[in-house]
Amino acid sequence: MSELLVSKWLNTKGEISLDNLRGNVVLVYVFQMLCPACILHSIPQAKKVHQMFALENLQVLGLHSVFEHHDAMEEKSLRAFMHEFRVKFPVGIDKASIRTKGIIPQTMEKYSMQGTPSLLIYDKNGELKLQHFGHMDDMELGVIVGTLISGDIS
Amino acid sequence: MSELLVSKWLNTKGEISLDNLRGNVVLVYVFQMLCPACILHSIPQAKKVHQMFALENLQVLGLHSVFEHHDAMEEKSLRAFMHEFRVKFPVGIDKASIRTKGIIPQTMEKYSMQGTPSLLIYDKNGELKLQHFGHMDDMELGVIVGTLISGDIS
Amino acid sequence: MSELLVSKWLNTKGEISLDNLRGNVVLVYVFQMLCPACILHSIPQAKKVHQMFALENLQVLGLHSVFEHHDAMEEKSLRAFMHEFRVKFPVGIDKASIRTKGIIPQTMEKYSMQGTPSLLIYDKNGELKLQHFGHMDDMELGVIVGTLISGDIS
Amino acid sequence: MSELLVSKWLNTKGEISLDNLRGNVVLVYVFQMLCPACILHSIPQAKKVHQMFALENLQVLGLHSVFEHHDAMEEKSLRAFMHEFRVKFPVGIDKASIRTKGIIPQTMEKYSMQGTPSLLIYDKNGELKLQHFGHMDDMELGVIVGTLISGDIS
Repeated sequence: MSELLVSKWLNTKGEISLDNLRGNVVLVYVFQMLCPACILHSIPQAKKVHQMFALENLQVLGLHSVFEHHDAMEEKSLRAFMHEFRVKFPVGIDKASIRTKGIIPQTMEKYSMQGTPSLLIYDKNGELKLQHFGHMDDMELGVIVGTLISGDIS
Repeated sequence: MSELLVSKWLNTKGEISLDNLRGNVVLVYVFQMLCPACILHSIPQAKKVHQMFALENLQVLGLHSVFEHHDAMEEKSLRAFMHEFRVKFPVGIDKASIRTKGIIPQTMEKYSMQGTPSLLIYDKNGELKLQHFGHMDDMELGVIVGTLISGDIS
Repeated sequence: MSELLVSKWLNTKGEISLDNLRGNVVLVYVFQMLCPACILHSIPQAKKVHQMFALENLQVLGLHSVFEHHDAMEEKSLRAFMHEFRVKFPVGIDKASIRTKGIIPQTMEKYSMQGTPSLLIYDKNGELKLQHFGHMDDMELGVIVGTLISGDIS
Repeated sequence: MSELLVSKWLNTKGEISLDNLRGNVVLVYVFQMLCPACILHSIPQAKKVHQMFALENLQVLGLHSVFEHHDAMEEKSLRAFMHEFRVKFPVGIDKASIRTKGIIPQTMEKYSMQGTPSLLIYDKNGELKLQHFGHMDDMELGVIVGTLISGDIS
């Protein structure tokens, strides 16, 4: 399993790891707080899934992977954004990378993401089932989630 | 299984029955061509599911269950509606009922539907899993479909 | 002035004519009850303008100009449509034309309209200021209406 | 006339003042870059008006009036926001106020604004014709703009 490389988790006590979330379908919404498609489409969808599956074996996570305008999207700005947009699920800050001179953060680089928004979907065994760049249609996402959530744990 | 009572099927050759559709998840969109919520929300969704699952074990059906303004929604009007709104899936005309003096059609009565739009969802074994009055959210529908389509046939 | 050629007015007592409406800005929404863009965009906009200017010198009219599927959009169907979609402003039925063998109705032909929805906008002097094919953006319409309604009568 | 109190203008060379804009209808969109209704509704509308009236006597201005999360919405963040959201019209930064301990900025206080988004509309004579709290409907705005833009300069 390819763990998320996170410098700090917000909206949660303690650490979060994909490993500890085994048994749950996990959706990771990779975003930047000043990315228009993230704000207009993906974050609202993430909030909707988070609410819809509050009582089920599904965990929504955010991953703040900043690759541009770094000084405009620091932790204090992210916290204000999350407060204003009522983001209640855990959000991790993607780890800065020395190798990329602080430009592309570590998880983003490791997964070779093309940008934000990106969506990572893991099944109950922690296996990455889908990596999607751009916004995903609600119904399409629902089908994937419905399929995975009714699946067994190996 | 509770068959649909249909006087005529449009957009298809031959008869359609839930029994013959075993092995498929079946979605029946019950509508009236002059019902605003049907036109604005449910028919567009039905078309979307129909396209999305064109190659899979899922069948979308329409059921035209007229319970008001009968003379404004006769077959010729329904055909014009389907042509203009590009409805490509099979649509059955709910059978007129002598018992209700032609007001409530037979399938609508048999299922005790509250009005239109209504949605009936059957699993691969032809068992009715959900009867919903009003429009259903895209993601919610996706989850149900994803769950049923990954289910086995008994 | 180029009068509308109407066989019957619904939603109003007596006749309606552009001549009698002098002193008002007049918007004529030309539609067919089974035209998707009319139902999804233009009729909702017409209802909105009608409500917004209920107390001002502006009159919204509908004109039902059927040029296809004639037997599916007869008066009884139009009445059911207007009831279901809560259309409260006057709607005229465009006069059938012998010259076009009953296909293109008279007002539609006279104005050389390209189809539905079309919008005709007259100033307070009854002069046609704009003829538009297709749906018009809300803000664009607002600007035109705001300009005309603050204009004088000559 | 009640001038805007601005510490710095972005997206423009030199100073901007309502006085110098006489002869133009002026729309001032008061916003915070992390206010959801501003991002989702008002900024998109401001961009639309700005484009629609590019060649006419109408000027769109932004006013960044931060009254919460100040350290998350500094100039560098605002600049990144404007870049990402393609804001091309001039945006002024509302002047910090010693009197309110840096909380409510000066223009916001002077106009007794209730929050963001707020919209100020001035006629060609520089007179404030409307101060609106919350988002304004496109058609409603169009009517006001159409009325003012066809008005004379006294």
